[in-house]
Amino acid sequence: MQSRKEMMQNRREIAINKLKGLGSQIIEDVNKNTVPAVRVPSRGTSNLVYDTDRRYYVLGDRYGKRSLGNVKQVKKIAQMVTMANFCKDLIRTNKTATIRELYYVSEGWDVDFGDQQESNIIGEDLEVTLGMTREDLGLMPEEDGASVYGNLILKDDDVEINAAKSGKSGYTISPTIDDVEFIDHDVQRVIAVETMGMFHRMVQEKAYKKFDTLIVGLKGQAARATRRFLKRVNEELNLPVYICNDGDPWGFHIAMVIISGSAKLAHVNHDLATPDAKFLGVTASDIIKYDLPTDPLKDIDVLRLKELAKDPRYKNEFWQTEIKKMLKIGKKAEQQSFSKYGLEYVVETYFPEKLDAM
Amino acid sequence: MQSRKEMMQNRREIAINKLKGLGSQIIEDVNKNTVPAVRVPSRGTSNLVYDTDRRYYVLGDRYGKRSLGNVKQVKKIAQMVTMANFCKDLIRTNKTATIRELYYVSEGWDVDFGDQQESNIIGEDLEVTLGMTREDLGLMPEEDGASVYGNLILKDDDVEINAAKSGKSGYTISPTIDDVEFIDHDVQRVIAVETMGMFHRMVQEKAYKKFDTLIVGLKGQAARATRRFLKRVNEELNLPVYICNDGDPWGFHIAMVIISGSAKLAHVNHDLATPDAKFLGVTASDIIKYDLPTDPLKDIDVLRLKELAKDPRYKNEFWQTEIKKMLKIGKKAEQQSFSKYGLEYVVETYFPEKLDAM
Repeated sequence: MQSRKEMMQNRREIAINKLKGLGSQIIEDVNKNTVPAVRVPSRGTSNLVYDTDRRYYVLGDRYGKRSLGNVKQVKKIAQMVTMANFCKDLIRTNKTATIRELYYVSEGWDVDFGDQQESNIIGEDLEVTLGMTREDLGLMPEEDGASVYGNLILKDDDVEINAAKSGKSGYTISPTIDDVEFIDHDVQRVIAVETMGMFHRMVQEKAYKKFDTLIVGLKGQAARATRRFLKRVNEELNLPVYICNDGDPWGFHIAMVIISGSAKLAHVNHDLATPDAKFLGVTASDIIKYDLPTDPLKDIDVLRLKELAKDPRYKNEFWQTEIKKMLKIGKKAEQQSFSKYGLEYVVETYFPEKLDAM
Repeated sequence: MQSRKEMMQNRREIAINKLKGLGSQIIEDVNKNTVPAVRVPSRGTSNLVYDTDRRYYVLGDRYGKRSLGNVKQVKKIAQMVTMANFCKDLIRTNKTATIRELYYVSEGWDVDFGDQQESNIIGEDLEVTLGMTREDLGLMPEEDGASVYGNLILKDDDVEINAAKSGKSGYTISPTIDDVEFIDHDVQRVIAVETMGMFHRMVQEKAYKKFDTLIVGLKGQAARATRRFLKRVNEELNLPVYICNDGDPWGFHIAMVIISGSAKLAHVNHDLATPDAKFLGVTASDIIKYDLPTDPLKDIDVLRLKELAKDPRYKNEFWQTEIKKMLKIGKKAEQQSFSKYGLEYVVETYFPEKLDAM
């Protein structure tokens, strides 16, 4: 089998070839005396398709054409090519840059960007045109990923890391997680929780032993690195992934973006979505069954729940029932609210009952 | 010398004794037929004193009295005593709880809180009355601390952690950092940076080797655990601490709260402030000297800079000059803006020049 290192080396070579290809194509056009043009797949909502087989959004087949024959498009093509050249150097020197750094680097270019927004868009154009993720091109998100605690051994460069021996806050998923190899593990599943409060509760109550599980602390909306990590443990290690969030529309959607990707990132959902991950968080049924301390739904919660009910990612019976029930009772609850029954309750009673019901 | 474990054991015993003392005092009063009362030091602004010797805010000697003879105060005393009892159990069982969990736990009490705000205030009353930090009482902040990369060996329970071998995102400071022992290190200093983007830049450019330094990624406003960590490396390991933030009033103040504590937490600044830490971040002078890409100061930046100029923590010549200069040029700059001169510039040129100038 191909090692992670070889696989990533291949991906880097593919990225370099695609980046070079973008430039050679323009040179070829010039040599052939035709006006150079680049085809950029459209990321507009009209080109967003929910793929029911893959269970996430993908891009349709519309695209725009950027031509050097169009004065308005000349600068954009120049920026794209200059950025591609910068990315090629990044990959060759085995470095990465944040999109913020890239923006400042461009201050030294003849075709610099007006603002960060402009530079981000060209970055996305490059992703979608080459069909590669930003990370493949060496452009990293600023933020770190989730915390991981439990019996998983990883290898990053020459360093072996034991996620059960990295301190109480566990191993932090870095933006370069694609380069990290999974060496060994001794778990049956992965349980991701929304807050670090719940993460620390699970570590303290030894949930990793009790459920033979990795514990993942998402810290709210999951970073791209976290989503790539969860996809890999699910697909490479064949571990079931459960997402245990708060019982409100925001908790639901944090889980759903992990499961079924986001609309905004349709062009890279194939690298980010984990369609087999399951929501195991607080539901409206749980609020009733466990008589949890609640907060009333705010207007914005109600609005959001109604949006979710119409979203194709929530079309199955489970979600339709639970969203309706939550709107009916008009209440939401945080996972930490189980502390009403004592700090241990969530690990000793609630999780076992939920896992049994799966 | 006393080991960290013994020291923490002592602190736990002191905490338990103080918590018990709160209850016994009330029982004694009852036995003596006097109306029980608790003295709670005042945390109001009129009782805030900037201590020029210690170089941080402390509380003055005003206090309020809560008496069981006052109907309005009965519930508050009952809540305080019930919370004290809960904390005693936490410490005894070697557990911790977040203040969010504590709030939900209180739903099971006869004297539950109306909302989280109410429960937080009683928690602070308890801290200030007993003269101990919230962490001493087992009540942890929700959020994790900074990321640490470099040659530092720590011990957490029986696990040894090497902060140079914990992955690209380093070791994460956990809320229970007080229990963690420093075993060994091979560094000359500590450089803390505001963003994880800069943290990863420094790791990639091997700044830990170049400057024999620990790299600390603050992730914005420093968590309490981060501040306790920086204080300990400074005082226990005698390492100079440099804080390298963005050149704007928010970057300045993130550094200042690490150095000189916050006004809101005057009652625990003795456990949080690191008065010998130095600001090594982007200044108005740097913006001019390095001709950095800038953003214009917004109204809110100008307002904040004027506030800082009047704050006793900023009264020295360095700050007064730099604040005035920034107001004069009307510009601010992020640390990542050095990328204008290439990704390596910040580590190869800027930091060495700044460290030399210290």
